Amino acid sequence: MPSSVQPGAGQLAITQSFSVAVSGAHDASLDEEVQRFQTQLSRQTGIPFRRQPGAAPALQVHADHGRQAVQKLGEDESYELTVTDSGAKLNAPTTLGAMRGLQTFIQLVGITPMGFAVPAVTINDSPRFPWRGTMIDVSRHFIPVDVLKRNLDGMAFVKMNVLHWHLSDDQGFRAESKRFPKLTGMGSDGMFYTQEEIRDVIAYAHDRGIRVVPEFDIPGHSRSWFLGYPELASGPGPYALEGGGPGYVDPVMDPTRESTYKFLEKFIGEMAKLFPDAYFHIGGDEVNGKQWNANPKIQDFIHAHGMKNNQDLQAYFNVRLQKILAKNHKIMVGWDEILRPDLPKTIVVQSWRGQASLAAAVKLGYSGLLSYGYYLDLMGPASRHYLVDPMAITPPTTLAATPDAPLTPEENARILGGESCQWAEWVTPENIDSHIWPRNAAIAERLWSPQNVTDVSSMYARMNAASLGLEWLGLTHRSARTLMLRRMAGDGDIAALRVLADVVEPVKDYDRSSEEKRPIDFHAPLTRLIDAAYPESDTARFFANLVQTYIASGYKDQDAEKQIRMWLVLWSNNDSHLHSLLETSSLLQEDETLSANLSGVASAGLQALDYLDKSQTAPDSWKTQQMALINQADKPSADMLLMVVAPVQRLVEASSAHN
Amino acid sequence: MPSSVQPGAGQLAITQSFSVAVSGAHDASLDEEVQRFQTQLSRQTGIPFRRQPGAAPALQVHADHGRQAVQKLGEDESYELTVTDSGAKLNAPTTLGAMRGLQTFIQLVGITPMGFAVPAVTINDSPRFPWRGTMIDVSRHFIPVDVLKRNLDGMAFVKMNVLHWHLSDDQGFRAESKRFPKLTGMGSDGMFYTQEEIRDVIAYAHDRGIRVVPEFDIPGHSRSWFLGYPELASGPGPYALEGGGPGYVDPVMDPTRESTYKFLEKFIGEMAKLFPDAYFHIGGDEVNGKQWNANPKIQDFIHAHGMKNNQDLQAYFNVRLQKILAKNHKIMVGWDEILRPDLPKTIVVQSWRGQASLAAAVKLGYSGLLSYGYYLDLMGPASRHYLVDPMAITPPTTLAATPDAPLTPEENARILGGESCQWAEWVTPENIDSHIWPRNAAIAERLWSPQNVTDVSSMYARMNAASLGLEWLGLTHRSARTLMLRRMAGDGDIAALRVLADVVEPVKDYDRSSEEKRPIDFHAPLTRLIDAAYPESDTARFFANLVQTYIASGYKDQDAEKQIRMWLVLWSNNDSHLHSLLETSSLLQEDETLSANLSGVASAGLQALDYLDKSQTAPDSWKTQQMALINQADKPSADMLLMVVAPVQRLVEASSAHN
Repeated sequence: MPSSVQPGAGQLAITQSFSVAVSGAHDASLDEEVQRFQTQLSRQTGIPFRRQPGAAPALQVHADHGRQAVQKLGEDESYELTVTDSGAKLNAPTTLGAMRGLQTFIQLVGITPMGFAVPAVTINDSPRFPWRGTMIDVSRHFIPVDVLKRNLDGMAFVKMNVLHWHLSDDQGFRAESKRFPKLTGMGSDGMFYTQEEIRDVIAYAHDRGIRVVPEFDIPGHSRSWFLGYPELASGPGPYALEGGGPGYVDPVMDPTRESTYKFLEKFIGEMAKLFPDAYFHIGGDEVNGKQWNANPKIQDFIHAHGMKNNQDLQAYFNVRLQKILAKNHKIMVGWDEILRPDLPKTIVVQSWRGQASLAAAVKLGYSGLLSYGYYLDLMGPASRHYLVDPMAITPPTTLAATPDAPLTPEENARILGGESCQWAEWVTPENIDSHIWPRNAAIAERLWSPQNVTDVSSMYARMNAASLGLEWLGLTHRSARTLMLRRMAGDGDIAALRVLADVVEPVKDYDRSSEEKRPIDFHAPLTRLIDAAYPESDTARFFANLVQTYIASGYKDQDAEKQIRMWLVLWSNNDSHLHSLLETSSLLQEDETLSANLSGVASAGLQALDYLDKSQTAPDSWKTQQMALINQADKPSADMLLMVVAPVQRLVEASSAHN
Repeated sequence: MPSSVQPGAGQLAITQSFSVAVSGAHDASLDEEVQRFQTQLSRQTGIPFRRQPGAAPALQVHADHGRQAVQKLGEDESYELTVTDSGAKLNAPTTLGAMRGLQTFIQLVGITPMGFAVPAVTINDSPRFPWRGTMIDVSRHFIPVDVLKRNLDGMAFVKMNVLHWHLSDDQGFRAESKRFPKLTGMGSDGMFYTQEEIRDVIAYAHDRGIRVVPEFDIPGHSRSWFLGYPELASGPGPYALEGGGPGYVDPVMDPTRESTYKFLEKFIGEMAKLFPDAYFHIGGDEVNGKQWNANPKIQDFIHAHGMKNNQDLQAYFNVRLQKILAKNHKIMVGWDEILRPDLPKTIVVQSWRGQASLAAAVKLGYSGLLSYGYYLDLMGPASRHYLVDPMAITPPTTLAATPDAPLTPEENARILGGESCQWAEWVTPENIDSHIWPRNAAIAERLWSPQNVTDVSSMYARMNAASLGLEWLGLTHRSARTLMLRRMAGDGDIAALRVLADVVEPVKDYDRSSEEKRPIDFHAPLTRLIDAAYPESDTARFFANLVQTYIASGYKDQDAEKQIRMWLVLWSNNDSHLHSLLETSSLLQEDETLSANLSGVASAGLQALDYLDKSQTAPDSWKTQQMALINQADKPSADMLLMVVAPVQRLVEASSAHN
């Protein structure tokens, strides 16, 4: 949603003679963006454009200035787009802003009874935050370049401007170092990016107005470094990528040895040249200190230097690290845990812990980014992410750092923006798109649009439209599921399986990887129904809204009732259609309970609807029986939740409370 | 269907430790094929394979000999595949045969209650015909390299071994010539393959065991040559690619001028080097002779050389052409019309006219290929293609050349095989896959499998399985329609539109491009429902089978009746769901009648079912009314046919004839 939208009268038809002219400043990025824009528009409308010689271009683009060779934080992204029934003008101070405006134009194109058209409108637009990113973990599961590229296309579509590339973690080191080839040679299972590929991704991102910030997570989350370079570790090893279990995350760098800094100096020197962005992320999260505690030399070092604890040791490490980065003209970024007053105010703290932690950082004079609330891998609904604002401390947390006063304008100005996070425990190249999209569009809007744009149902309408647009770009967030369901079903028909898949969601937060379920085998297939299921069920949301409408109407809305009944009939019959398939596929056997629950709950809903329809009160014994069934169906099964249980429960409760 | 299949007991489990070992001869093609095989198997099963050190490979591949550097017609493609519950062995005389066997293995993998597995089996397999091709026209609509490549993947999957690349025609010249750059420079609208791209496609095809035979269609179908080189033409010009209408196809080369042969000598010399295959297709079809008739010099030439007519002139042209080809070590291939006894017996005649024409050619001692009956662009069902056999003259034709005796074994041996043809009047990169696949798999089976494999319902079961396999290869024959429907529907839900799309088919044969509908604008968008519709409706075939089952049971099969009723209810309600969408989209307005007809016909079917269900005879007046509606709905609307009209008509007729 742009910062300002003034609707006009009429519409601009998109015809076969549609063309774009560029005047003022232009550079390779804008020229290529215009090319891509035309291809994308042609793909979306199916019109093969053919410029008519001499005809005026339908869209005139003008930029006052070119953009920076290396995109800077805060570079002007504003633009003004005016569409009338005779043409469109896009003006921007920079070519970067013009690129943003072209994406807005694409999103305005729709089909009408007279053909494809853009409604007349005047838009003045600029982002609320200068840093709007997506973090992608490529360590737990490797994500190939082509998958990254289509996600960059998606990010550009929703005007995000930072790819935070989480390149190393316990499970794999993914960026080639020529100075330290064993980092990937022994620490990556052969799946990593060459420097040429990294440059290619950076150039691809730059062409789309996206900065690339690398993260090498140290001193913790660093097991993969130690396969090739065990001398960096605080414990004796040996180290392997495989395995899991409680001790798996203990390995940590040894900050007490000068050789560690010599290594990092060389490594960061190499990476600083490879990644042109001014910012460099060093991770710094979740050091559990076990290896430090177990190493007497490290404990001696702590005492000898007058440090009180492991946190002091990590702060010492960070201060030295920051100096290395500064020497390489890089600004340090790290997770909450790096926050210590002994670091210079130039650093950026990225908060996974919460808005209070972020507020604490900016009160101390640091810059900050919010990621708490934007963890896509926790499988929350888009609405939950959408309502998390980097500048609003909701919900309150109990962290010691909670500020007792609202932030001043100066403090707020140090909140640079935020980043969604896609941790990769449960994604492969096949399903990562559906874990990121379309929910990432809601986070992108939170970071771009004015703070008071918060209407959830209006957001969902835009998100659904964006989801379609993303498909034209080649994102597989919707198409991949069909193939995954077919894999499960073999030669069987997937219609009934799709009905089930449409109303389930993966369990939330860390329930799938809870302690008792570890160790996680990062080499296991991710081919279960949970892996194909969307994080948020559109059908369930739609159904819950129908039930809400029906109840709010005092059970009088017959159209809502008819639709509710149609869904319930479909679901109540579904288990009988699906059952034989569930038995014949090893991948589906675990879903028998879920399928039976769906049909059982739907039958309860139909009975409830009958009572409501006839204005009868359901007997208590019936209600007791149905509630037992509903409570059973509300529990996770095969790591999934049946999302229509709650609305059916509302019907059951309404039918027994009726009159 | 392999030539010989012996089922065994048990199955071979496909586990994470699955691996392949190659012994005997191997070459780059086989090594890469094994790599692709593992990737494909991993994709299809979702299992990330990890070879266990020391473990025996589950599949042992052995080839006795390598393959030819340039694939030869008739090169050995046989293989033997033995699968037991403890492992699989694939043996072949050549690496080419081993490649075929790997595709068979992939197709045997299925999901079971115990995981993915291949049933125990012994297969001895070799092709019936050595030439099994797909012709793709890239002139009417340009088909980019990536689209060709995925279709080559599909061809390899169904063991086809020739891509016949129709590179020039009236609407565009698509292959770069360095000697004659104006061929593409002026004759292609900028859309053509560079020589580098051509070499890339040839190498890609070779890696998959596919020969590439280029076609440059002359002397007719050659308008695109004349934009850059009007001196080749028999008429005065000027020539343009645009336009259409009756005279559009008249331009033809001038066979009376020596300069024409000088040009062709240089051109063919260049192309003969570019395309390594031993065969070279010169088209030769559909010369209407109008330009020859209108050119007095040409008529003088005909008389001066004692020729009787234009056919004699074309024969003269072909004889000279054949000599040029022979000098370049190429064997000439052409369409039926080139058949004249003055050409050497080495040439190959490709028959678009019929099996009788093919038989006539082989009786004269020529080799032949059948394409009649395999025209995918005519929108026939797979069953129709499937039952056309190159060696069986069915249906009888009335062509003068009809042989009066069956072919001798020697004559039959000159039938090299056949080719499906995808002419490109009505396809774009977006929908071409769905026009070729999965029906092309049925033609591939006709050309590979024994002549007595003709069971249609068994073919459909295999074709449906192949269709799923093709999706894993990246073919878009099923996925593209969803996007096309979304384009039509804008932000609207496509469920009801899909219901309609599922039961329609494009009009057949040349009905879409009939004379009164010309000129065809080859630059118009192909974004109508007809362009998204599949050539063959699975749903309609399935429904017709249900009706057949129900009627054959004497109206007693209650399961069939229940399913019929379910479909009829869905369709009878569909127009009300779809109607508002049809009104709001310019691309859907033309489909209002079709949608209304579907619901109307379905309602008639429901009433008929009620009569049958109650063993009542429907009144004559009712029947008259319904038949009027049915006859109306049976007519094409928006260039589409409603494929469920015929089975509903059977129900209506049954209900009124009942008792």
